[in-house]
Amino acid sequence: MRNILVLHGPNLNLLGTREPEVYGRQTIDDINQLLVEQAASYQTKLRFLQSNHEGALIDAIHEAREWADGILINPGAFTHYSYALRDAIVGVGLPVVEVHLSNIHAREAFRHQSVLAAVCVGQISGFGVRSYLLGLQALLGYLES
Amino acid sequence: MRNILVLHGPNLNLLGTREPEVYGRQTIDDINQLLVEQAASYQTKLRFLQSNHEGALIDAIHEAREWADGILINPGAFTHYSYALRDAIVGVGLPVVEVHLSNIHAREAFRHQSVLAAVCVGQISGFGVRSYLLGLQALLGYLES
Amino acid sequence: MRNILVLHGPNLNLLGTREPEVYGRQTIDDINQLLVEQAASYQTKLRFLQSNHEGALIDAIHEAREWADGILINPGAFTHYSYALRDAIVGVGLPVVEVHLSNIHAREAFRHQSVLAAVCVGQISGFGVRSYLLGLQALLGYLES
Amino acid sequence: MRNILVLHGPNLNLLGTREPEVYGRQTIDDINQLLVEQAASYQTKLRFLQSNHEGALIDAIHEAREWADGILINPGAFTHYSYALRDAIVGVGLPVVEVHLSNIHAREAFRHQSVLAAVCVGQISGFGVRSYLLGLQALLGYLES
Amino acid sequence: MRNILVLHGPNLNLLGTREPEVYGRQTIDDINQLLVEQAASYQTKLRFLQSNHEGALIDAIHEAREWADGILINPGAFTHYSYALRDAIVGVGLPVVEVHLSNIHAREAFRHQSVLAAVCVGQISGFGVRSYLLGLQALLGYLES
Amino acid sequence: MRNILVLHGPNLNLLGTREPEVYGRQTIDDINQLLVEQAASYQTKLRFLQSNHEGALIDAIHEAREWADGILINPGAFTHYSYALRDAIVGVGLPVVEVHLSNIHAREAFRHQSVLAAVCVGQISGFGVRSYLLGLQALLGYLES
Amino acid sequence: MRNILVLHGPNLNLLGTREPEVYGRQTIDDINQLLVEQAASYQTKLRFLQSNHEGALIDAIHEAREWADGILINPGAFTHYSYALRDAIVGVGLPVVEVHLSNIHAREAFRHQSVLAAVCVGQISGFGVRSYLLGLQALLGYLES
Amino acid sequence: MRNILVLHGPNLNLLGTREPEVYGRQTIDDINQLLVEQAASYQTKLRFLQSNHEGALIDAIHEAREWADGILINPGAFTHYSYALRDAIVGVGLPVVEVHLSNIHAREAFRHQSVLAAVCVGQISGFGVRSYLLGLQALLGYLES
Amino acid sequence: MRNILVLHGPNLNLLGTREPEVYGRQTIDDINQLLVEQAASYQTKLRFLQSNHEGALIDAIHEAREWADGILINPGAFTHYSYALRDAIVGVGLPVVEVHLSNIHAREAFRHQSVLAAVCVGQISGFGVRSYLLGLQALLGYLES
Amino acid sequence: MRNILVLHGPNLNLLGTREPEVYGRQTIDDINQLLVEQAASYQTKLRFLQSNHEGALIDAIHEAREWADGILINPGAFTHYSYALRDAIVGVGLPVVEVHLSNIHAREAFRHQSVLAAVCVGQISGFGVRSYLLGLQALLGYLES
Amino acid sequence: MRNILVLHGPNLNLLGTREPEVYGRQTIDDINQLLVEQAASYQTKLRFLQSNHEGALIDAIHEAREWADGILINPGAFTHYSYALRDAIVGVGLPVVEVHLSNIHAREAFRHQSVLAAVCVGQISGFGVRSYLLGLQALLGYLES
Amino acid sequence: MRNILVLHGPNLNLLGTREPEVYGRQTIDDINQLLVEQAASYQTKLRFLQSNHEGALIDAIHEAREWADGILINPGAFTHYSYALRDAIVGVGLPVVEVHLSNIHAREAFRHQSVLAAVCVGQISGFGVRSYLLGLQALLGYLES
Repeated sequence: MRNILVLHGPNLNLLGTREPEVYGRQTIDDINQLLVEQAASYQTKLRFLQSNHEGALIDAIHEAREWADGILINPGAFTHYSYALRDAIVGVGLPVVEVHLSNIHAREAFRHQSVLAAVCVGQISGFGVRSYLLGLQALLGYLES
Repeated sequence: MRNILVLHGPNLNLLGTREPEVYGRQTIDDINQLLVEQAASYQTKLRFLQSNHEGALIDAIHEAREWADGILINPGAFTHYSYALRDAIVGVGLPVVEVHLSNIHAREAFRHQSVLAAVCVGQISGFGVRSYLLGLQALLGYLES
Repeated sequence: MRNILVLHGPNLNLLGTREPEVYGRQTIDDINQLLVEQAASYQTKLRFLQSNHEGALIDAIHEAREWADGILINPGAFTHYSYALRDAIVGVGLPVVEVHLSNIHAREAFRHQSVLAAVCVGQISGFGVRSYLLGLQALLGYLES
Repeated sequence: MRNILVLHGPNLNLLGTREPEVYGRQTIDDINQLLVEQAASYQTKLRFLQSNHEGALIDAIHEAREWADGILINPGAFTHYSYALRDAIVGVGLPVVEVHLSNIHAREAFRHQSVLAAVCVGQISGFGVRSYLLGLQALLGYLES
Repeated sequence: MRNILVLHGPNLNLLGTREPEVYGRQTIDDINQLLVEQAASYQTKLRFLQSNHEGALIDAIHEAREWADGILINPGAFTHYSYALRDAIVGVGLPVVEVHLSNIHAREAFRHQSVLAAVCVGQISGFGVRSYLLGLQALLGYLES
Repeated sequence: MRNILVLHGPNLNLLGTREPEVYGRQTIDDINQLLVEQAASYQTKLRFLQSNHEGALIDAIHEAREWADGILINPGAFTHYSYALRDAIVGVGLPVVEVHLSNIHAREAFRHQSVLAAVCVGQISGFGVRSYLLGLQALLGYLES
Repeated sequence: MRNILVLHGPNLNLLGTREPEVYGRQTIDDINQLLVEQAASYQTKLRFLQSNHEGALIDAIHEAREWADGILINPGAFTHYSYALRDAIVGVGLPVVEVHLSNIHAREAFRHQSVLAAVCVGQISGFGVRSYLLGLQALLGYLES
Repeated sequence: MRNILVLHGPNLNLLGTREPEVYGRQTIDDINQLLVEQAASYQTKLRFLQSNHEGALIDAIHEAREWADGILINPGAFTHYSYALRDAIVGVGLPVVEVHLSNIHAREAFRHQSVLAAVCVGQISGFGVRSYLLGLQALLGYLES
Repeated sequence: MRNILVLHGPNLNLLGTREPEVYGRQTIDDINQLLVEQAASYQTKLRFLQSNHEGALIDAIHEAREWADGILINPGAFTHYSYALRDAIVGVGLPVVEVHLSNIHAREAFRHQSVLAAVCVGQISGFGVRSYLLGLQALLGYLES
Repeated sequence: MRNILVLHGPNLNLLGTREPEVYGRQTIDDINQLLVEQAASYQTKLRFLQSNHEGALIDAIHEAREWADGILINPGAFTHYSYALRDAIVGVGLPVVEVHLSNIHAREAFRHQSVLAAVCVGQISGFGVRSYLLGLQALLGYLES
Repeated sequence: MRNILVLHGPNLNLLGTREPEVYGRQTIDDINQLLVEQAASYQTKLRFLQSNHEGALIDAIHEAREWADGILINPGAFTHYSYALRDAIVGVGLPVVEVHLSNIHAREAFRHQSVLAAVCVGQISGFGVRSYLLGLQALLGYLES
Repeated sequence: MRNILVLHGPNLNLLGTREPEVYGRQTIDDINQLLVEQAASYQTKLRFLQSNHEGALIDAIHEAREWADGILINPGAFTHYSYALRDAIVGVGLPVVEVHLSNIHAREAFRHQSVLAAVCVGQISGFGVRSYLLGLQALLGYLES
């Protein structure tokens, strides 16, 4: 039985409620539900947190040391400047997979760089909701090996 | 009847209590009072929030979708690095006017760039407390047209 | 009784005659008329100059020392490279407010920087014709204090 | 029935034959075999090409217009400078998913940038051989939607 | 019958009178004469202006809206910094072709960049007087299509 | 009797619980205890705050105006991007000493720059727990003079 | 009788078969045919090569020493990084004219720079198929003089 | 008998009329008078022009070919961006000496670079009015040798 | 008995046939002959490849794993951008010595950087044909130790 | 009994003799005396050298291998460019602590970087003479552990 | 009676003995002799030092505090990196005039910047031996005022 | 009979006495001895100097004009910033070969650039003591031709 923390960074609570033609109609709850279903088939339990507060995400990462085997994170805009999140990831020593709904490499220049990527296992970006599902698979695969 | 959210970013709670010869003697409450008076003559209601927490400002922007027609923000130092605030502004789709007490283009190099400006309607900087009053006018004018 | 010089930089004579769906149908004469009306209620007299010649704008700034209390300028593309205009502003010592019709921070990268901003009282950009009206108010407010 | 072109860029033919402790013992044929197995369950047929010649990869991308529904590519070192590959991807208009065995964001600085990423559907990096399998899933998912 | 404005930027009035071994012996009048001859065979009328004054060139571009179908310009050194000329070109909406006698890409680093090129139809550089003749052809061809 | 605020930035709560061979076995409580002991011999009282929330650190700095003579801070990763902390330090006008356990100048490039250093009295980095003790001494010495 | 080598770089074989609304319906064979017709009136013979292989283009440039008087090249994406092509041009000492269908100065930033331009006679960009025809004229004119 | 053109760039007409404690009380006429006196002892005649128009300065440089042996120029703010002035200097082939009242290397960063210096005989900066006198000497000395 | 692969990159086949006053009259065959003679005295056998195709050089490096003890390479222009060659060198794990006929540090700026140097044993540049002979010695010396 | 070398870099011999209101009235001898007193309580002997010659400082570092346990250095302006001092520190393998009287991070931009810091144990800056005393403590503490 | 220290930096002892067609035939002794003659007419005494040792120049600047009224320096290559010389100039508080034989702004890019200029009274470059004579005049003029 | 000056820059006197597993056990005397032996077979005499003083190396280069035919130099860390050494090399006009024990292109970024390389005949780096022996050969070969 694996335990995984799923973190959604700032503004991801808006998903599905705005510009559905761009981001789709799926809310963050829908995504979480899809992840739960996928996790079930892997004997994996998930806990979720969405926060617009950098500190709350860091706190959750710290607490994950007590119970989680790995972390799946969509850091939102924190991707580009939160060195504190980076240090949290290094600090707890859990494997982390970074996912993005959109292809960050095809957007504004400031989004091309992730200050977290260098301390994560890997990065998946550009596949919409599927980025999360692929990320969970990737994380579980990593934990297998 | 219009509704406007007025946001004051980090450290603006210190206004008026320190270095009055530089920043003037007006506190944030004084500014809010002036804005309320100006708003009254435009049939406009204002709600205020000052916070030193980026996440709290983002939360407030999200909630503004429910009740506000626009946002007036002095982002303080978040101007220069908070891509999360930027995404919040884009995410809620409300018109936002960015104001600064001092002329940010005449201060240290790091203050010349605003990561928010590109997603705001416009920017007003350098006129002290008047920056807020001009900003409110600008926002209401924008909503008119 | 205040006297203000209003300067329009290069290409602003084209306003209103092209792409009205983008820039609106107001010509530079319409803007000047609006400014005159606003100024009247403040006991303020305005003089206007539009020129595509950097030198003509500098000459006008110099002459303003003889009669003006302040300058309202939309420097157009000179914003981005005319250090000579910058020196003129410093040289005459009059308060100057810089305005832009469009949000220069949301356009091409070369427009993000103003070589004039550091020597102006403040900058207003992004509010269309209202940028001028807000700018005049800001300048008069500055002269008050 | 879907058809997918799988491209392996320069030096990937060395996989499995050197430094197995780093890159694992799986050869490119092993990876292809795993992909074939995964593809089978999706009613998908794969064709493979590994080449150390940029031109050969471009030729293959061009030919894929005739028969393929999408492309899965590990561009190897071409990731970082082959604007010709980029133009080929744009030119044929097929959806492309970019994968990397290692986490390119955690290696030398020159590897952080992909000149291809902006024209691909998305990018997956850091999961070893699983990067390919996740990439194939991602591509098929993209074709579904 | 087409009408074309031919603009020669700063210092081009010196052509032919100095360093004939480098720039050839042809004066700006000779070039204009060659252009007139070429234009004649295309049922095209040309008007010419050489000026060392940025503002005079802008004024001429503005006036061209009244009578011209396109503009052929050798911007001289204004190529590298005159954003005002750039805005003039955008402002009048006429097709503009940029030509240079010398190969600007093979000279000092500051000459490699043209701030005008992005708003012109195209650029021709390096062919001496022929750059003008090719440019006129290119412009007329563009107007054809 | 002096009063000093001791601030520990993000992730410093992990100290001593992970990688003791790198960071030593001392927890943040141990460090605080050592500081209390040192402070006692200087007739100085300390208050402590560790937080992963930028806003909480700013709030504490603001409140320190009411009771503290100076601040000792290990800003953790906020060192590198929190201009809001910088403004808080400037805003309260208390002397601040910045300390780092590791030598930030010998680590990743992004750690070489401190956006806080320019507004602190001084910086001490590289001496492990001793950085704090030296920092307290430095701060008290500064207050002496 | 002149002999000219016409080189088409990577992906130009796709011309006319995709996005005809953007690039027109003319294939590379159509372009070659137009060039042949133009060349005929100048007593000039042309040979053609299109290749996606940098090495093949270099080989062709080398062989051109035996028979050609000049080279007309559209280097495609090699424009931006193929220093080997640059050395080939320098190495054979033949005059080379560089052409581009689109205005490379008005596209993505990486396309603004040509590593070949400094060793070519001149550059023509932005006129679609006409860029080739103008380029051939320019090259023949250069050979005349 | 030598003939020298003395050029004063933009804003230098303000000299002596403002901030005498900084720039001294000498007007541009005073400076010209001092230069005339110095020139007299060298059998040298001077002509003067001050202009805020870049084009007027260029025109004057061109005309100087007819009568002058050299040029003494204080280019003011044009120092930092007028490549057109640079080309004018190269174009007429007269020796030019560049002078500055203030030490441009000790002022704002944008003033450290002169785009003219590379095509002048030499540069003198920092000695107030004496910069002109030294510059005239330097130019006459250069003409001697 | 040692076996060494000698690789000549793009355009080196032109050696000796052009500009003999610059590059000398020695062809690549002459260089190979000199290397064979030198190798003979060290009981070393050489195989040679010159190619203008990056892929062909990579293929040769890969095959060298089967028979060679080291590689001597003059990468020509690939020095400056072929990360694929770099990966090939790392991939096969053979010691490689990089040589250049000319002093690349005294030529155009783009030639100062070698993307290969960091993964080679060492670099020798500037000694003409002797660079090869010294490189072979250096490689054999390295294999000795 | 410990032995420590104390090095004062260029211009530090001027301390106390100029601008006492800025740098204080303490001469370098006063500082040395204070250090001797502090050292005495730690059973530590000090030797001192001040030199304006980079080579003399390097020589002293080399000789310290024979007798010293560590080095305390205020490198003065060598901090910013003396890679030779850096190599000397690495070369002798002694622990080195770098101190600065002023806060180098709050001065001109060129002073923000220390080319030595990465090879020292740590850095202390901004505390005037106390920087030395804290530095000695830090060094002795380091030697303890 | 004034006293001036004249400093010649590294390699200036070679003057006149090499490449007389470039640097002229005047040795450093000749220059000194010319300076002595000029100084005589101003009731000024000069002392001279040429050194290739940065430390020796610094020592001389320090000693000049005892006897000199100002310093004339040609810092040679130290111009571009000797922050220690810069600090020495600031440290002694004497007025310093920087001179260069050649126009440093027209040579290699690294010579364009002087790290000393910002702390000197002014800079004179490009007039050969006359640069020294003009510099002495400039310094004496400065001391007058 | 040839005469060669062999220069060893700063810190090279430490060779062989520290970290023998990295730099080998050979001292600078051993290297000199090897060079003498090699030189003997070429009828060449060597003189040696190691110094940690930039000025001493420059003095030696100057004196070499009197007796030497060329210079072999390992500039140590001066490689990266001593423009004075560069000027010395240019000044004396002797051929210089630059050698490095380690591969400077594979170390820290600041070591990748040599400010001397552009004025040397060539550069050899990465072959340990053999770099010197190869360098001497290269220099003698150069003198032959």
